[in-house]
Amino acid sequence: MSLKNRQWVFLRNPEGAVTPEIFERREDAVPEVSANNILVRNRVLSLDPANRMWMRGPTYRQQIMPGDIMHGFTISEVIESGDADFKPGDIVETMGGWQDYALLPSSELTKRDPTIPLEQLSGIYGITGLTAYFGLKDIGAVKAGDTVVISAAAGAVGSSAGQIATNLGARVVGIAGGADKCAWLTDELGFDKAVDYKADDFRAALKSACPDGIDVYFDNVGGQVLDAALRLMNQKGCIVCCGAVSTYDIEGKPFVSPLLPGVLVAKRLRMEGFIVLDHMHNRGDAEAQIKAWIDADTLTPVMDLNNGLERAPDTLIRLLAGGNRGKVALILD
Amino acid sequence: MSLKNRQWVFLRNPEGAVTPEIFERREDAVPEVSANNILVRNRVLSLDPANRMWMRGPTYRQQIMPGDIMHGFTISEVIESGDADFKPGDIVETMGGWQDYALLPSSELTKRDPTIPLEQLSGIYGITGLTAYFGLKDIGAVKAGDTVVISAAAGAVGSSAGQIATNLGARVVGIAGGADKCAWLTDELGFDKAVDYKADDFRAALKSACPDGIDVYFDNVGGQVLDAALRLMNQKGCIVCCGAVSTYDIEGKPFVSPLLPGVLVAKRLRMEGFIVLDHMHNRGDAEAQIKAWIDADTLTPVMDLNNGLERAPDTLIRLLAGGNRGKVALILD
Repeated sequence: MSLKNRQWVFLRNPEGAVTPEIFERREDAVPEVSANNILVRNRVLSLDPANRMWMRGPTYRQQIMPGDIMHGFTISEVIESGDADFKPGDIVETMGGWQDYALLPSSELTKRDPTIPLEQLSGIYGITGLTAYFGLKDIGAVKAGDTVVISAAAGAVGSSAGQIATNLGARVVGIAGGADKCAWLTDELGFDKAVDYKADDFRAALKSACPDGIDVYFDNVGGQVLDAALRLMNQKGCIVCCGAVSTYDIEGKPFVSPLLPGVLVAKRLRMEGFIVLDHMHNRGDAEAQIKAWIDADTLTPVMDLNNGLERAPDTLIRLLAGGNRGKVALILD
Repeated sequence: MSLKNRQWVFLRNPEGAVTPEIFERREDAVPEVSANNILVRNRVLSLDPANRMWMRGPTYRQQIMPGDIMHGFTISEVIESGDADFKPGDIVETMGGWQDYALLPSSELTKRDPTIPLEQLSGIYGITGLTAYFGLKDIGAVKAGDTVVISAAAGAVGSSAGQIATNLGARVVGIAGGADKCAWLTDELGFDKAVDYKADDFRAALKSACPDGIDVYFDNVGGQVLDAALRLMNQKGCIVCCGAVSTYDIEGKPFVSPLLPGVLVAKRLRMEGFIVLDHMHNRGDAEAQIKAWIDADTLTPVMDLNNGLERAPDTLIRLLAGGNRGKVALILD
């Protein structure tokens, strides 16, 4: 095959914020297919706060190492297959990375329904939507009447989690940066209340938005916002630890709530981290439920889309700075 | 009744460490019994790290307020009863406080087996032993082969938890202050390893004592020791939050691990606070198991006993400074 494969190489973990200089463009030949390997073309590249965490060290997955093609979730199309289970044209979910083409073992591909819009496969039906769903259901055990607070509520996972919590019968309070985002959460996405964490009266406003305390706090950020939530948690409440984006870019010591861990004892709280990959055995049920809510118009997939692989670094940087609404992804040409 | 009732009154929450000056001795008349109330004489007064937490604010129970008789768990004897369910001579567990006599509603008394030594009712068969048992079983879900690390391991709960974890088939590593306590844990109580948190090489020693990482960390202290444990936790491990004694006496900002909450996500950890009172529906089974281990000589109740109500303040201060081995209680005259 004589096609070229545009790629972004990861050069180094930055000490502070991600900058364009930690990535380098490269062109390579499109790899040759061998037995059990599949050549895919990446159609949608998902950008996720977790990408930043992967740079920092090994977690539930391997660290991104200097010289790697930058890692990223993709919705991809099978071009040529060395495995009878996949045929050209199949749509798959995989870790295709920041490049046009990827050669992957078939064990790393999950076949997806090609009748669903590709960007929704990357969003509400992908890691993003399932993270929100399983975090609320399996970790938070949200029930009708609970007060559920969600940070980074205008983000990909947050905007899904808020709407899903509403569908579960909870009273939902979103935390986001800026009055515009907050108005959007209540006016467009049906959040009961939204609180601006950048405002001077943030803590008082959060308290007033939660007159019955907080039963489940879905935390995407850590730091000061987690501290504010901990002060309002009800006895036997749960903190669903989905991310800690406020700490990812910090040089030196991040702010950590001085209430930890004593408040967990005093209020018998459970604070639990999870990754969606541990819950995939229930994926079918989750997707059926999500589809039912979308069909009933009580769940709106919110996408923040742009075109072109060349925009990957800038788009990730914008995401980490909170410049997005909903699921950030790039449609690849 | 013309007997006198010696009492210790709580004057104020200290800003730093507890001092004798926050308590005041008083003598009062022994109260008269009325319907549904029971007059008890306190026989054993339990001193617990949680007493310090109760001074600081409301928790799962009411705060100790200035002017209150200092709160404390007791093993008490019924002297005169206004309730047919209790008769003079019955031995009960209750919150009798720092005084000779208490008048309490019958709903606050739990009848105990009078054939068990009273100090053991206050220790291994009381809040202390049950806290260790339920923390390991219900919260930590410890299973054979787990590496279980226990802080404040020479304390009342810690010395029980270490032995119970051994009985559950775990490999047990204790953390305590000083070489003497550490030697005692391994030589007398059967801990597999013990690590001195006051030693310069504490972190390296803990790592070397846990070559397979930590599956369950039973945390009584918080602070630096929790931070060291978090770095060694295995994927999907559990931190049982039983107490945070390192933070109770701190003026200003306590040290909190900068890994929180990100590490909970990266390693999918569960960090859960609990209080034993939520688990009392299984008390019968727990006590039967504890008795079986004691009878088999695989569990040794460790008591740190003294005599006399007048020693209550000094004994609590010694306990909070880590000057005890095992369960601290006062036998009242």
